[in-house]
Amino acid sequence: MIKINHNYKKLQASYLFSDIASRIAEFQKANPETEIIRLGIGDATRALPAACIEAMHRAVDEMGEDETFRGYGPEQGYEFLREKIAKYDYASRDADISAEEIFVSDGAKCDTGNFQELLAPDIRVAVPDPVYPVYVDTNVMAGRTGGFSHGRYENIIYMESTGENNYVPRPPENGADLIYLCFPNNPTGATITRQELEKWVEYARDNKALILYDAAYEAFIREDKIPRSIYEVEGAREVAVEFRSFSKTAGFTGTRCAFTVVPKNCRAFDEKGEPQMLHPMWNRRHSTKFNGVAYPVQRAAEAVYSPEGREQVKAIIADYMENAEIIRKEMENLGFSCSGGLHSPYIWVDAQTDSWELFDMLLKKAGVVCTPGAGFGRCGSTHIRLSAFNSRQNVERAMERIRKAVKEG
Amino acid sequence: MIKINHNYKKLQASYLFSDIASRIAEFQKANPETEIIRLGIGDATRALPAACIEAMHRAVDEMGEDETFRGYGPEQGYEFLREKIAKYDYASRDADISAEEIFVSDGAKCDTGNFQELLAPDIRVAVPDPVYPVYVDTNVMAGRTGGFSHGRYENIIYMESTGENNYVPRPPENGADLIYLCFPNNPTGATITRQELEKWVEYARDNKALILYDAAYEAFIREDKIPRSIYEVEGAREVAVEFRSFSKTAGFTGTRCAFTVVPKNCRAFDEKGEPQMLHPMWNRRHSTKFNGVAYPVQRAAEAVYSPEGREQVKAIIADYMENAEIIRKEMENLGFSCSGGLHSPYIWVDAQTDSWELFDMLLKKAGVVCTPGAGFGRCGSTHIRLSAFNSRQNVERAMERIRKAVKEG
Repeated sequence: MIKINHNYKKLQASYLFSDIASRIAEFQKANPETEIIRLGIGDATRALPAACIEAMHRAVDEMGEDETFRGYGPEQGYEFLREKIAKYDYASRDADISAEEIFVSDGAKCDTGNFQELLAPDIRVAVPDPVYPVYVDTNVMAGRTGGFSHGRYENIIYMESTGENNYVPRPPENGADLIYLCFPNNPTGATITRQELEKWVEYARDNKALILYDAAYEAFIREDKIPRSIYEVEGAREVAVEFRSFSKTAGFTGTRCAFTVVPKNCRAFDEKGEPQMLHPMWNRRHSTKFNGVAYPVQRAAEAVYSPEGREQVKAIIADYMENAEIIRKEMENLGFSCSGGLHSPYIWVDAQTDSWELFDMLLKKAGVVCTPGAGFGRCGSTHIRLSAFNSRQNVERAMERIRKAVKEG
Repeated sequence: MIKINHNYKKLQASYLFSDIASRIAEFQKANPETEIIRLGIGDATRALPAACIEAMHRAVDEMGEDETFRGYGPEQGYEFLREKIAKYDYASRDADISAEEIFVSDGAKCDTGNFQELLAPDIRVAVPDPVYPVYVDTNVMAGRTGGFSHGRYENIIYMESTGENNYVPRPPENGADLIYLCFPNNPTGATITRQELEKWVEYARDNKALILYDAAYEAFIREDKIPRSIYEVEGAREVAVEFRSFSKTAGFTGTRCAFTVVPKNCRAFDEKGEPQMLHPMWNRRHSTKFNGVAYPVQRAAEAVYSPEGREQVKAIIADYMENAEIIRKEMENLGFSCSGGLHSPYIWVDAQTDSWELFDMLLKKAGVVCTPGAGFGRCGSTHIRLSAFNSRQNVERAMERIRKAVKEG
């Protein structure tokens, strides 16, 4: 008899987006004339940089001629892209990462979801709370958790990220083997200092733990002293895997390109306690279950590193970040305490009430959609996430409406 | 302590391609003037159809303007593509598959590798021998096998596919829960008749088994009576998942688009023996660990179904199939018994000796590279695979050289 993976039964249906959708639909039905503005979505809205478009057109033309056509590429990604990443994202920050340690993929979500496959079922997993749900759900599927009760899965260590610790959790006292960190954070927008990151690396070294470091929002960091990569910290190579994406950097959410860094000396351990390198294991998994990213997409990603591409990306990010400033400033003026928005497209707003209550108020009185923090875990239940991914005009109109709604409220 | 998934230690290093590469390098060093012709590779060599190139250019242009830019698409694929697949690949063959049952992805390899995640660890897995190694390796990673000995993994049922059964194995007597089938087959090129396929569906229904049906080479079938989809057989919806790809159909090996069909009533069972539908489970996995295929790539795939695209694809396939005929005819004239090459780009040649011996002879005397069957399992050890993916000129030159080498031999 063919049996299912019974761990899937533990998964909680995510009602977040369907709940949001149904509340929006209800409101729109009652107020057909109101144009709803969505500040909830973490999805790029600006066109791809011109350099990427040009590179992609050229690559598509190559695919149209027998002489220049490309079939299967290397599963790990083309050298031309891996070399650029190593140079511009790592060497430029004095982080010692070679092209061979970079695995190009179709998404950081996929990679953070898949990486746990290399690890044993009986490890202790620590995630931040609030958390990007993929970290948790993929461990539920893999059988590393117990059941779900009171809003949390058993056998998961939730590291609370609140205003009290500036949304940067400290290493858990009860010991963790696999630690998910994300900075700049989704959803809180918080960044981590070098000193704090050093503590995490030290913890991982001392406790023989592994850090999965999600740096998908790195491009939004605007201060040189804030670490962009965990490999800027000495000793991180042995204990950390890093995930990056072109999705938020250059608007590739619908174009799909990302990468994962697995240093050659990054280790886990076998049952005898002997170190085992993760690089060949990820390489094996990647070659067996993945077939590389489309050639035109890799050429578009390469163009992100061209002189024009870098200027264009900088301009797009600056534009989103002006949106973020407008949102944060306005919310603070209205008396809300905020984190994020300085080195992140997300503003995490203390709702001072249940997150769904503020969601409903903003929808009904301002016609603005946010993301209720409850969707990210228990510690998000009194916050909302506002996103800077939108046009300036929409952001300004939304903030004007929110101002009016709050003042009238 | 962070521990590895110890099943990875059971994986055998695949020396096939590195062995081939080092033998080629050695030969080339000794014979620098000989231009080697590769008939080993299962990779498209002809340019993408013009209709796909045009569609991709248009989509790239859309991505370059804020007004028409697309961010995250549906993880399951755009409706425009799923509808075309349902209509042209299934309704046209009287196979009852709806657009909602189609999940667009970046590769059939990825999907066949990932699908086993939905299933319990303690099921009995049956694979053909010779076999596409991904079916086996992904089950090794998931812990469904024992160790490797005498060329096979313990706890895997190998279904021998030989000249005696026309390379179509019969259902195993000792019972199997998860069955991998691939027709037209890689590497043997064999097809399955409707009657034989009906027996498999009946077996799966009687034994509460699940069939993973890999139809990646369906486009090479040239006779109407040969089934192109397992859903042409009544009762298959409940017991079969089908994998398809644009890789071989339309030369998408470097462009990446495929799809998996999970009928809404396709079932596995829980521990109590209650049926559990696989469609919502795959949907959950797909949404959690995958982010959809690049928009321009989905537009290119859609163009495969346009009137021009269908004509262009037909012409490209016909061209490859003429290569296949030339290869098969020549090998048969030289006294080799062959399968495949009629509804498949692969010709499976009985080497009448160890597969590496014929490999070496063809390389050294003809400068032609084939794939030794030993790389596909025990039953491949006396066969080689020749591939029709090449230019006409190369195929003709290769066969002329092989003819000379064999006659002189």
